[in-house]
Amino acid sequence: MQGTAIPDFEPVAERLGEFVAADPSFAGTLSVHHHGQSVLDLSWGPGTRPDELLPVFSSSKGAAGIVVACLVRDGLLDLDAPVASLWPEFGARGKGAIPMRQLLSHQAGLIGVDGGYTYAELYGHAPLAARLAEQRPHWAPGSAHAYHALTIGVLADEIVLRATGERLGDYLRAHVTGPRGLDVYLGTPETEEGRVASVELPTAEELAAFTDPAPASPKGSLGWLALPDDHPNMLVECNAERFRRAGTPAGGGLANGRGLSALYASIHHEIGGLDRLLDEETVGLMSQQQVWGRELTSPFSSAFAVIFQKPTERLPFGSYRAFGHDGAGGSLAYCDPHFDVSFGYTVHRIPLPGGADERALQLSRDVRRCCVAADGGTPRAVW
Amino acid sequence: MQGTAIPDFEPVAERLGEFVAADPSFAGTLSVHHHGQSVLDLSWGPGTRPDELLPVFSSSKGAAGIVVACLVRDGLLDLDAPVASLWPEFGARGKGAIPMRQLLSHQAGLIGVDGGYTYAELYGHAPLAARLAEQRPHWAPGSAHAYHALTIGVLADEIVLRATGERLGDYLRAHVTGPRGLDVYLGTPETEEGRVASVELPTAEELAAFTDPAPASPKGSLGWLALPDDHPNMLVECNAERFRRAGTPAGGGLANGRGLSALYASIHHEIGGLDRLLDEETVGLMSQQQVWGRELTSPFSSAFAVIFQKPTERLPFGSYRAFGHDGAGGSLAYCDPHFDVSFGYTVHRIPLPGGADERALQLSRDVRRCCVAADGGTPRAVW
Amino acid sequence: MQGTAIPDFEPVAERLGEFVAADPSFAGTLSVHHHGQSVLDLSWGPGTRPDELLPVFSSSKGAAGIVVACLVRDGLLDLDAPVASLWPEFGARGKGAIPMRQLLSHQAGLIGVDGGYTYAELYGHAPLAARLAEQRPHWAPGSAHAYHALTIGVLADEIVLRATGERLGDYLRAHVTGPRGLDVYLGTPETEEGRVASVELPTAEELAAFTDPAPASPKGSLGWLALPDDHPNMLVECNAERFRRAGTPAGGGLANGRGLSALYASIHHEIGGLDRLLDEETVGLMSQQQVWGRELTSPFSSAFAVIFQKPTERLPFGSYRAFGHDGAGGSLAYCDPHFDVSFGYTVHRIPLPGGADERALQLSRDVRRCCVAADGGTPRAVW
Repeated sequence: MQGTAIPDFEPVAERLGEFVAADPSFAGTLSVHHHGQSVLDLSWGPGTRPDELLPVFSSSKGAAGIVVACLVRDGLLDLDAPVASLWPEFGARGKGAIPMRQLLSHQAGLIGVDGGYTYAELYGHAPLAARLAEQRPHWAPGSAHAYHALTIGVLADEIVLRATGERLGDYLRAHVTGPRGLDVYLGTPETEEGRVASVELPTAEELAAFTDPAPASPKGSLGWLALPDDHPNMLVECNAERFRRAGTPAGGGLANGRGLSALYASIHHEIGGLDRLLDEETVGLMSQQQVWGRELTSPFSSAFAVIFQKPTERLPFGSYRAFGHDGAGGSLAYCDPHFDVSFGYTVHRIPLPGGADERALQLSRDVRRCCVAADGGTPRAVW
Repeated sequence: MQGTAIPDFEPVAERLGEFVAADPSFAGTLSVHHHGQSVLDLSWGPGTRPDELLPVFSSSKGAAGIVVACLVRDGLLDLDAPVASLWPEFGARGKGAIPMRQLLSHQAGLIGVDGGYTYAELYGHAPLAARLAEQRPHWAPGSAHAYHALTIGVLADEIVLRATGERLGDYLRAHVTGPRGLDVYLGTPETEEGRVASVELPTAEELAAFTDPAPASPKGSLGWLALPDDHPNMLVECNAERFRRAGTPAGGGLANGRGLSALYASIHHEIGGLDRLLDEETVGLMSQQQVWGRELTSPFSSAFAVIFQKPTERLPFGSYRAFGHDGAGGSLAYCDPHFDVSFGYTVHRIPLPGGADERALQLSRDVRRCCVAADGGTPRAVW
Repeated sequence: MQGTAIPDFEPVAERLGEFVAADPSFAGTLSVHHHGQSVLDLSWGPGTRPDELLPVFSSSKGAAGIVVACLVRDGLLDLDAPVASLWPEFGARGKGAIPMRQLLSHQAGLIGVDGGYTYAELYGHAPLAARLAEQRPHWAPGSAHAYHALTIGVLADEIVLRATGERLGDYLRAHVTGPRGLDVYLGTPETEEGRVASVELPTAEELAAFTDPAPASPKGSLGWLALPDDHPNMLVECNAERFRRAGTPAGGGLANGRGLSALYASIHHEIGGLDRLLDEETVGLMSQQQVWGRELTSPFSSAFAVIFQKPTERLPFGSYRAFGHDGAGGSLAYCDPHFDVSFGYTVHRIPLPGGADERALQLSRDVRRCCVAADGGTPRAVW
């Protein structure tokens, strides 16, 4: 384990040390900002380096959400406006009235396209965006929600393109991460190849021993629509160069804990010498929970703000004001304004089932306790 | 077992043979159309004939849905328009803004009328329609859904009457089933009495051994409102001549598997020498899921398109594009555009609890596997 | 046990006698009106008197709901109008379009205020009302519901103040309870101190033995926002004089069974020589279920009309037309138009967990059976 932790946050480093001791294959990065200051920045395990770039799957959506927030801040995107007001083709097949906030919180029923789609269409962006614009919603918009695992990125990307003339990943780099020097990429340039770390897939033994609480969706089901219909699956695809280059905003980002925590910290604080990214009004609009409850395509409940996840019983990553996103590879990154803290965590080996694992959530609890103690409160009374 | 099955669909006939062998009292009809062709047409069990007419309870709603679809196709009914625009009296007591799609998907809170209603009012149509128009919704429209077991037929009937001047059952016969020679009746004429088969009720032993997962609703509860308040109950009533004659659109239809499968096949295909009934746009509008989740009046979840049921975990009858309806007597009939298949199944003995039984759902799975194999795919990978 | 029960309702008194025999510490009051007549009026247990005044916690909300109903009746409050039309400051932070009926059924996401609030702000009314007006909804209005344990009273109070110039508790006394001589106070005057009974808190032993199915919300959670952030908690606070004086409409009322039952009876019947309080149209508007299902902040389901609770599986206090409210101290009071009955029950010792206990619900069932028998029906067939 290498890196730093200020004394107030040493309990988090200690907990991490326990996890490292218990699992020699455990490798990753963790970074925390409190009141805009880096209070913990660690990397550990075989083959890690603090500035490595690892695929973070759906934690990419956090970066996408921050780009959308910038457009809201600048008045380029009104969350209550119909999507079709920016993207006229989108209005086809009963979608003329769908507001931005509904589309961007997994409620509009555009989880995929009839007949399925390919990686080529996903990476090419325009082909899939055009098909989504033509698609009839898979359910009456607003009557249900289900995780648009990849399409939400394509939809947000097209909205950003229409509003700014820039693709979402380019906007991120040009206006958010680039000037601040943050390691979060939606579309990782070839120049960064030397820092790329590989996602370690579950072993055959692990897979054999694993009973998925939400089994894979059969062909012809809604769940099946959500992912590309051609092999390989994304857990294999994620280590491919074309995956990194395309940087599809819903799942193709590369990052490290330091970059993710600093990105979320930059929302409220000066980072890299630049002013805070967003005002309170914009944060309030973007982080307000839009939908909650059981998903149509899974046995689980979830909660979403605009693009961002909100904490739930299954994913208790913070206060009612927190917003962020986990990733299928085990990552977790968020901002929690109630504690004025941000958190970035990445891990090399994919946990089963995917998403932030119990270690990430325990570290997140420890962080909140440290925040309260650092601010003079009584940590035990908090969580 | 008599009838035909083309080689690609023989596995379905084999499964049915197993069911017949396991239960000597099992009697019914099953018909399947694939790509618009009859690929399987069977009847079996004591006292059956392929052209028998059996009460199919809520599978009647499928025929009602197809009539509504014809009106949508012809521009006579706009699903987004207020019901009151066609039926002004309906606007009473806060119902002025309820759109067609909400009323026709069990969401408007008109499960019955305060004080209960009688079979005479149901069969007479106009008396119950008038009381429903006067009724305050039992919940804020759109805030919940619960199966309008019988009233949805009366509501749809009145809408069809207002839009076309014809009663729903008459429209069905004049414009849909009559010209195509299909055995699905909402209001079975006296001339067909010779073909009528009787529903076989559960025995006293079966009823004694049965623990209903959703016990009967007590008087004064919402569930109690849904059914006529005077005896006998509908499972007894269904064999009465007045029941057949009235043909209440939500539950009073008579049909056989052949008629039901052909009716759903006629949506996309030439049947009986007549052009397909509906265009893709209309199918898309009518089959889009409108509501989903736990019902207010039962411990179960359900999903509805406009009148039609959508597949759920409890009733997994097909792909996300499938639409149809089961019946309390055990019947199941649907169209699944993803597999380009339609399915009609009727059974003489009422299963406990009611609705499509496991046999129907297993046959439905087998049919999908056969569709995929017939189209050159790998059936095991599908369901 | 003292008081009266007419013969038709003696079974209820017998049941109560069993409860009293089983628990010597059981003390409280129960009153029932049927067809507007007092049919049962009892008090029992150590230290009770029939005209005692006991804190009834959230059963206070029933009185608040009746005041709101009076404004609806008089056209001073339109449930479909935006709250901001009466209370312009409320329109801040995306709340301009929230209709009255949504706010008053726990759906608008104003469970508290960021940072928490104090008893002083709650009792002062204006400070908390102003902060609520400034608050961004904790979720997209209408996307979820969760019990606004105390704020719903402040919100209703401000609406009544804006519509009438009177505070809600003053309106209640001046126009509803005062003229009829009913013992229900939101703001109990000093003159009534002699009749005040104390809520008996759970003993340390009871608390130690108790596992809460819905554990207390941690700081920073939505559930934590709902209650005042400064000690003591309300179960202790409820016996304080300032609590009685303030009479916060969501939980600070004092009453007895007689007063509560007569208050609900006065909705449809002449009580205290004055005409019935509300017409059927108003009762229909106020008692229509507005929201239903699992709450965002608890593992439980609930159902609400405008302010009033509706019966659910967890709280089965009557027919689909019933409306009322239980209280954390164990009280239960409601009106059930289907049986033309009203019910008021108070109890000295707080049950664990809070809310109407099984005894109250059993008595409520017995009352319905007696109503049916009294009206010539067959009680066993009913519930």
